[in-house]
Amino acid sequence: MHEAYEKLSRKMEELGQLEQISGILHWDQEVIMPSGAAQARAGHLSVLAGIQHQKLTDPSIGQLLDQLDSQFPNGFDNFQQCNIQEIRRRYDREIKIPVDLVQELAELGSRGHHIWVKARQENKFSEFAPVLERLIELKKQWAHHIDPHCPPYDILIDDYERGLTMKQVDPIFDVLKAELVPLIRSIQESSYQPDVSFLQGEFSVEKQEALGRTISEELGFDFDKGRMDISVHPFCGGGDPTDVRITTRYGSDNFMESLFAVIHETGHALYEQGRMERDRALPVSEALTTGIHESQSLFWERMISKQKAFCDYYMDLFRKTFPDNLKGVDSEAFYEAINVSRPSFIRVESDEVTYPMHIILRYEIEKGIFDGTYAVSDLPEVWNNKMSDYLGIRPATDVEGILQDVHWSGGAFGYFPSYTFGAMYACQFYNAFKKEAPGLEDWVRNGKFQSIKEWLNRNIHVKGKLLSTENLLKEVTGEGLNPEYFIAYLKNKYDKIYRLKPKA
Amino acid sequence: MHEAYEKLSRKMEELGQLEQISGILHWDQEVIMPSGAAQARAGHLSVLAGIQHQKLTDPSIGQLLDQLDSQFPNGFDNFQQCNIQEIRRRYDREIKIPVDLVQELAELGSRGHHIWVKARQENKFSEFAPVLERLIELKKQWAHHIDPHCPPYDILIDDYERGLTMKQVDPIFDVLKAELVPLIRSIQESSYQPDVSFLQGEFSVEKQEALGRTISEELGFDFDKGRMDISVHPFCGGGDPTDVRITTRYGSDNFMESLFAVIHETGHALYEQGRMERDRALPVSEALTTGIHESQSLFWERMISKQKAFCDYYMDLFRKTFPDNLKGVDSEAFYEAINVSRPSFIRVESDEVTYPMHIILRYEIEKGIFDGTYAVSDLPEVWNNKMSDYLGIRPATDVEGILQDVHWSGGAFGYFPSYTFGAMYACQFYNAFKKEAPGLEDWVRNGKFQSIKEWLNRNIHVKGKLLSTENLLKEVTGEGLNPEYFIAYLKNKYDKIYRLKPKA
Repeated sequence: MHEAYEKLSRKMEELGQLEQISGILHWDQEVIMPSGAAQARAGHLSVLAGIQHQKLTDPSIGQLLDQLDSQFPNGFDNFQQCNIQEIRRRYDREIKIPVDLVQELAELGSRGHHIWVKARQENKFSEFAPVLERLIELKKQWAHHIDPHCPPYDILIDDYERGLTMKQVDPIFDVLKAELVPLIRSIQESSYQPDVSFLQGEFSVEKQEALGRTISEELGFDFDKGRMDISVHPFCGGGDPTDVRITTRYGSDNFMESLFAVIHETGHALYEQGRMERDRALPVSEALTTGIHESQSLFWERMISKQKAFCDYYMDLFRKTFPDNLKGVDSEAFYEAINVSRPSFIRVESDEVTYPMHIILRYEIEKGIFDGTYAVSDLPEVWNNKMSDYLGIRPATDVEGILQDVHWSGGAFGYFPSYTFGAMYACQFYNAFKKEAPGLEDWVRNGKFQSIKEWLNRNIHVKGKLLSTENLLKEVTGEGLNPEYFIAYLKNKYDKIYRLKPKA
Repeated sequence: MHEAYEKLSRKMEELGQLEQISGILHWDQEVIMPSGAAQARAGHLSVLAGIQHQKLTDPSIGQLLDQLDSQFPNGFDNFQQCNIQEIRRRYDREIKIPVDLVQELAELGSRGHHIWVKARQENKFSEFAPVLERLIELKKQWAHHIDPHCPPYDILIDDYERGLTMKQVDPIFDVLKAELVPLIRSIQESSYQPDVSFLQGEFSVEKQEALGRTISEELGFDFDKGRMDISVHPFCGGGDPTDVRITTRYGSDNFMESLFAVIHETGHALYEQGRMERDRALPVSEALTTGIHESQSLFWERMISKQKAFCDYYMDLFRKTFPDNLKGVDSEAFYEAINVSRPSFIRVESDEVTYPMHIILRYEIEKGIFDGTYAVSDLPEVWNNKMSDYLGIRPATDVEGILQDVHWSGGAFGYFPSYTFGAMYACQFYNAFKKEAPGLEDWVRNGKFQSIKEWLNRNIHVKGKLLSTENLLKEVTGEGLNPEYFIAYLKNKYDKIYRLKPKA
């Protein structure tokens, strides 16, 4: 038994390493690859995907799993049991997918990215549409292979947020819509609007970079086991937990965007760098879900860095870095300015109140794509109409609309809901943490980020895939997902910032 | 038949792509990988090496080759014939090597690099010695598996310079020694020594980088299909011909080192970027040998860039880039200064006259390592004694001696002779080119590098592995390797620069 488990583990470790190699190649592609190499790189990723598929679907994996199943769970500790279950799930899914489909998805996902970059530069949705069409078709096939009786979009969501279905998402998103649309309107109509003038101006990119590095390191990012670079779309990628690579992007007219991207990606990076030490290349040690990953980035970006105490701690450094711009700005004014909420076209530039509407829009569009309601050619118009309905603004160009996100260009449909589920998880984690450590805000005010990082390490990062999302939430917060924490947090915070009238 | 050939080609293309992936990972390791990721990366390279080995030794390859052999060469064009022969050679060699050995070599070659970097930083040969010892042992095993009846060092040389053996190298190196040792002495004793004072001073790294980029691009490097970065040891690496990555290193007290490294690596890059368009991922389209590759880097670095006409063309740009340092320096003075010859400890900093002695030293040491004459613990002393014998200088530290080169840390024994064979090929190519195009120096003087690049593309780069080195030389120059061109070139050039007495 032990021998079969060991054999299976070595095979899965090799697969994990191939996944890490793909991670490095993806990072390279986004950050530093010469433009002329796009086709070659698409080929590399396709070859790797094919090998991974081949190795995961090798009959020897099925045989080893069958051997282990016959004894399961006797003699296996919890870690091993979860590991076996995770491998079983992957194997059972993967043997359903033909290798040609795997390779075409990898190849088109890589090439599609470059076509999207160009279409976005030239504001031509028509250039991207044929790739998008084909990716949707391939993803439909993919979902059908996994379970022909299940709505394809549920299969796609499940790939990022295990166990989540439209049936669960719909009512939660309905509550959010019902609560946030009026809140967004109240904020817009408030006679009090924070001063944000000092956040505009000229901000040297070198100073922004130095500031980002300093803060990322103080939050706990280990630069001996990671890098920070520039890409079109900020992300956290790389190889294994000793090689975690975050990116940001700089504009000289604004330092908030680069800084909060750095903090966000640092949150992702701390999850990866904080993973369990035991058998790091095995499936069970990996991060739990995309939504839980997002909860970690948003924990730092929103729950920690957008609170008043964080501004108190860093105000001196901000002023020292940009003395001309921030002269006479105190941390209260700074706090209000960085928490300004207003509808914007671009998801990644939007604030925590309007962000869920961006997600709900995408969720509804993806639903419509996969249940046949929308054709690809309809999408720019559908997008713009929904923006108008939910946020009261209408994109003038597709760059401000449907061409803005990287996800679809790589075939990542079903990913978006994770962002808002992550935001809700983050808020619920923060509430639980604060109950346990009432001095939490003072820790932030005094820069004791190490203690915060260690709480997350201990409660979330090292747990890998040992628990389901539901059970992790229960273990850490005492209950399953409850969107009320998120809604109460937003109302409470923005009522104060915008001096909104208390509800009767 | 056609079908078997196609099948085999697809399999080899996949192998070529895996090799390119390794290339990107190696580049990443040398240029940007976080230090903490060394162990993980060693694992990645080992996994890839294992898969490559497994795929190349798959019985299906042998079966396809056997099918093709039965009809060979009927119905195959020259390209296909060479491709089949090249695959046969690789397959026959690879099936002799156990996969464990392949993986240990890949893993230790990657880890060894990091240990070497550290040992070099700390000037501690003892830190590197155990790795070196093990690498030698593994390479001995490797050579023994390939051919137990052949001296291991011949097998190692052959891996870089196909067909070359100690029997051929010895007499050529003896001639070089006999001719160059007196020339080096005459140069040292000459009463005329060029002024090099203006090459020392402060040179902004930003300006050096801009200068390197400009010149590399003017020589023909396509930056849409490549990159230029910084590494400890300059090299040309990357993925396929659309992703060729060169590196250099900068010191603010000297701009020659970075510039000539850029030109050298550009020469390698032009070979890769200039490879045949047909079936680029097949073995036959690859560069011929390490020595021929080196001939291309040295063609540009020495034959083109170290001639007077090159200084004439670029003198204005050099003066414009570093006006304070090069005030009043004309191209004649510049030409003499960049061609100063004097013994130095570091191979990569040495000039074309003394360089072969560095190579002969390493060749003799490698010979002694593999025939059992030297133990690893003897090597620092042996190195220093030989330096003293051949160049009249003795390293004070191992950093200036045995720890200086990257090669052994990755298991690359037998590589060094290629440098000097490359220098001799480059000189012989240049002579043939000049016979064909008597206006060649004027092309250089007028910056017509495109015509030079095209000659190399046409005569060497696109030929891949279609010819043996011997036959390539014969086709391009009318004869096999003749070291007399190199010797005559050096004597003629340095007699003039150093005003040496003409021989009686």
